[in-house]
Amino acid sequence: QIDSARLWGTIHETAKFGATPKGGVRRLTLGPEDKQVRDWFRERCEAAGLEVHVDALGSMFGLRKGRDMSKAPIGLGSHLDTQPTGGKYDGVLGTLAALEVVRTLNDAGIETETPICICNWTNEEGSRFAPAMMASAAYVGDFTTDDILSRKDAEGVTVAEALDSIGYRGDAPVGRQKFSGFVELHIEQGPILEAENKTIGVVDSGQGVLWYDGKITGFESHAGSTPMPLRRDALATLSEIVLAMEAIARKHGPKAVGTVGEAVIANPSRNVIPGEIAFTVDCRSADAAIMDALDRDLRAAIAEIAARRKVDVQFDLIWRKPPTHFDPKLVDAVENAAKMLGYSHRRITSGAGHDACNLNTVMPAAMVFVPCKDGISHNELEDATQADCAAGANVLMHTVLALAGV
Amino acid sequence: QIDSARLWGTIHETAKFGATPKGGVRRLTLGPEDKQVRDWFRERCEAAGLEVHVDALGSMFGLRKGRDMSKAPIGLGSHLDTQPTGGKYDGVLGTLAALEVVRTLNDAGIETETPICICNWTNEEGSRFAPAMMASAAYVGDFTTDDILSRKDAEGVTVAEALDSIGYRGDAPVGRQKFSGFVELHIEQGPILEAENKTIGVVDSGQGVLWYDGKITGFESHAGSTPMPLRRDALATLSEIVLAMEAIARKHGPKAVGTVGEAVIANPSRNVIPGEIAFTVDCRSADAAIMDALDRDLRAAIAEIAARRKVDVQFDLIWRKPPTHFDPKLVDAVENAAKMLGYSHRRITSGAGHDACNLNTVMPAAMVFVPCKDGISHNELEDATQADCAAGANVLMHTVLALAGV
Ligand SMILES: NC(=O)NCCC(=O)O
Ligand SMILES: NC(=O)NCCC(=O)O
Repeated sequence: QIDSARLWGTIHETAKFGATPKGGVRRLTLGPEDKQVRDWFRERCEAAGLEVHVDALGSMFGLRKGRDMSKAPIGLGSHLDTQPTGGKYDGVLGTLAALEVVRTLNDAGIETETPICICNWTNEEGSRFAPAMMASAAYVGDFTTDDILSRKDAEGVTVAEALDSIGYRGDAPVGRQKFSGFVELHIEQGPILEAENKTIGVVDSGQGVLWYDGKITGFESHAGSTPMPLRRDALATLSEIVLAMEAIARKHGPKAVGTVGEAVIANPSRNVIPGEIAFTVDCRSADAAIMDALDRDLRAAIAEIAARRKVDVQFDLIWRKPPTHFDPKLVDAVENAAKMLGYSHRRITSGAGHDACNLNTVMPAAMVFVPCKDGISHNELEDATQADCAAGANVLMHTVLALAGV
Repeated sequence: QIDSARLWGTIHETAKFGATPKGGVRRLTLGPEDKQVRDWFRERCEAAGLEVHVDALGSMFGLRKGRDMSKAPIGLGSHLDTQPTGGKYDGVLGTLAALEVVRTLNDAGIETETPICICNWTNEEGSRFAPAMMASAAYVGDFTTDDILSRKDAEGVTVAEALDSIGYRGDAPVGRQKFSGFVELHIEQGPILEAENKTIGVVDSGQGVLWYDGKITGFESHAGSTPMPLRRDALATLSEIVLAMEAIARKHGPKAVGTVGEAVIANPSRNVIPGEIAFTVDCRSADAAIMDALDRDLRAAIAEIAARRKVDVQFDLIWRKPPTHFDPKLVDAVENAAKMLGYSHRRITSGAGHDACNLNTVMPAAMVFVPCKDGISHNELEDATQADCAAGANVLMHTVLALAGV
C-alpha cells in the first residue's frame, strides 16, 4: 500500500506552483511555474535515488534500477503542465503517484526484476503549443523533434526558445529512453465512474482526436451604415460554424464531441462588422468511422456556410490522432490489480487524450482512472478525493510490480 | 469655390499619421498618432489666423472672428480619430474641409457677420472608449465631464490619463464654447449616393443607436471528455445570440441593423469548452418604435437562449442615442447650397452616428454627405474622389456663409 497522506501532501505542495485565486492551477507548459514544478520534481526524484535525465523536448525521466538492467524499464507517470485555468489533479496525480510508488518500494526495500522509470512528459495539455501530448507524439515518431522545436505559441515563442528559457532542453535524443511498457494513472475527467460509484476505471480505449486551425475572412465595414444584406460578417459565419459543429457531434449521440475552444477577432471594434476571425476546432470519437464522418460533415457544412455568406474560410487539419486500443495484456494487468486490491471497477474509454495513447503505438500501454468530482476537468474547480487518489496509486503500483516482477 | 487640390493635399498629408500597410489609418483617439494629427491641426489653424483652444475632454476649437462678436459662432468640423482599421476620410474630410473653408475665406478676404469656429471633437469613433461621439455627448449634457474622464479602455487606461499623456486636457470647461448652429461634412459610409449617382446627400435624419455590454458565464470543461448534453458552452451561447441579433435586424428589413463587433473568450484553450465570454452589441434604427422593438426582441431572445443552455447572460445597455431629426431650416440651407452650386443631390438618413447628431439636441444642426466607394467605411479600403470631396466642401462653405452672413 502506498502512503496516502504523503501522496496527497505532494499534490497539494505542487499546487502552489501557479496557484490561482479560485483554487485551480495555471501552469502553462515551459513557463516559469512549469520550471518551478520541474525543479521540485527533479529534486524529489534524486532524493528518492532515481537517476534523472531530460530529453531534447524537456521530458523528464527518473530511472530506478532493476535486477536485470538489460531489460528496458516499465514506464509510469504523466505530466505536470496544466490548462490556463486548470485543476490540481489533471496529470499531476499520475506523475506524483509514480513518485509515490518509488518511495513506497524504497521504504519497503523492494527491488524489481525489470527497472522502472517515472516520467513527466512535456506539453501534454496542448494549450500553449499544438498538438497536445506533443513530446510523447515526437517520442513515438508522429513528428520529428525539429518540427516540434519550431512550433510557436500565440506570442510567437518557439518550443526551442521556451525550453532554453527555463533550462530544460536536455541532451538525450527524443526516443532514446526505451520502455518495456507504460502505465498512466489519471483522473477520469468525465462523469461515468462517479455516476456508477466505481473507484477504478480500467481504461481499454481512448477517443481519437481531430484538431483544426480555421480562419474566416469576411469584410470589415460600418456597423451602422452597412445594410444587413450587404454584410460579409466573419463572426456571424463563425456562429453558424460553431452551431453546425455542435449539431454534427450531437447527431452521433454519445459517440462524438466537438468544440470550438478559441476564436479571436482581428482588430475588434464595437461599431465594425468583424472582418477576420481565427478559430480552432477539436472533435473526437472512439470510432474511426465516426471520426471520418465528423471531418466530412464539418467540411461540407463550412463550405455551404462560406458560399452562402460570401466569405472565405480556410480550414486546416493540424493534428489527427486515431482512436486508441490499449494493450489487452496490460489492460488485464490493471484489472487484476484492481480486483486483487478489492476496488470496485469497470472498463472505460478515455474521453481525453493522454501520453499513454501515443506510447501505446510503439509499446504495450494501459491506464488507470479514478473518479473526479462531477466529472469536471480543465476547470479550476477540478476535484478528487484522497481515498480515490490513493486507490489509483495502489492499482498503479501493483500493475507495475506485476509487469516488472519482484 | 474652395481649393480642391489643397483640400486633397491635407487629407493625404494627415493620412500619414497612423498609416497602415493596406492604405488605411489606425489613429485611435488620444493615442500617439492622434497627438501627431492634433499638433498638425493646431499649427495649421493658428497659421490660418484662428484662435485655438482645447476643452477639458480634448476637443479642439479654432475661432475665426466675425463682425458681430456678440453672436455665438457657426460651428463646422468633425473628428480626426479613426477606427483600428479605419480609412483616410471618415471624420478627416469634415475637419479638413472646415480648415479649407477658413483658408478660402482668408484668401478671398471674406469677412462674415457671425464668427465661425472649426472643431475637432474627441473620440467620435468610440472604439477605444465608449460611447462613440463621447465629447459632443458630454458637450450637450448627456454625460458629465467627470463621468467621461473616468471611462476606461481595454487596457484600463482612463480618458483623463490618455488626455494627460498626450497633453490635450484643455482648460476650457466642456460646453463653454457656444454655437449658433453646426454643420458637418462627412462621407456617407453607405451605398446610396453612389448607387443613385448623386454628388451630395442632404442629411435630414440619423439612426438611433443602442450599445450593450454583454457577458456570458457558462462552465469551462474538457473538450474531449464532457458529453455534449452536459455542456454549458459560452461560445455556442454567443453564437445563438449573434444569429438572433442578425435575424431580428433582418426582420425589420432596411429599417434596422444589428452587429456583434467584439467577443473575447476568457482564458481560451483549444481543448477547453469556453466558460466565459465578454461581447458587445450595436443596433440601430432611424425609427424610435423599431429601436424599442429591437431592444425587447433581443432581450427576449437572450433570455430564452440563456435559460435553455443553463448559462448566465449579463446584458447591459450602456448607451442609447435616440434617432436624430436635423433642424429643418439648416437642412434647407444645405439643400439650397447644393442647388445653387448645381450638384445632384437627395435627402438622406445617416446610418452612422455623428457629433452633429448630438449637437442637434441643443442647437440647430445639419450635415452634408458625399459618396464613398462601394459604400465602404470602417475599413482600410475606404475611398472617395477628389471631386466629390471638393463638392462637399463647397456645399459646406456656402451653407456656412448663408448662416453666418457675409
Ligand atoms: N488529459 C488531458 O486533459 N489531456 C489534454 C489533451 C486533450 O485531451 O485535449
Ligand atoms: N461616423 C462614424 O463612423 N461614427 C462612428 C460612430 C458610429 O456611428 O458608430
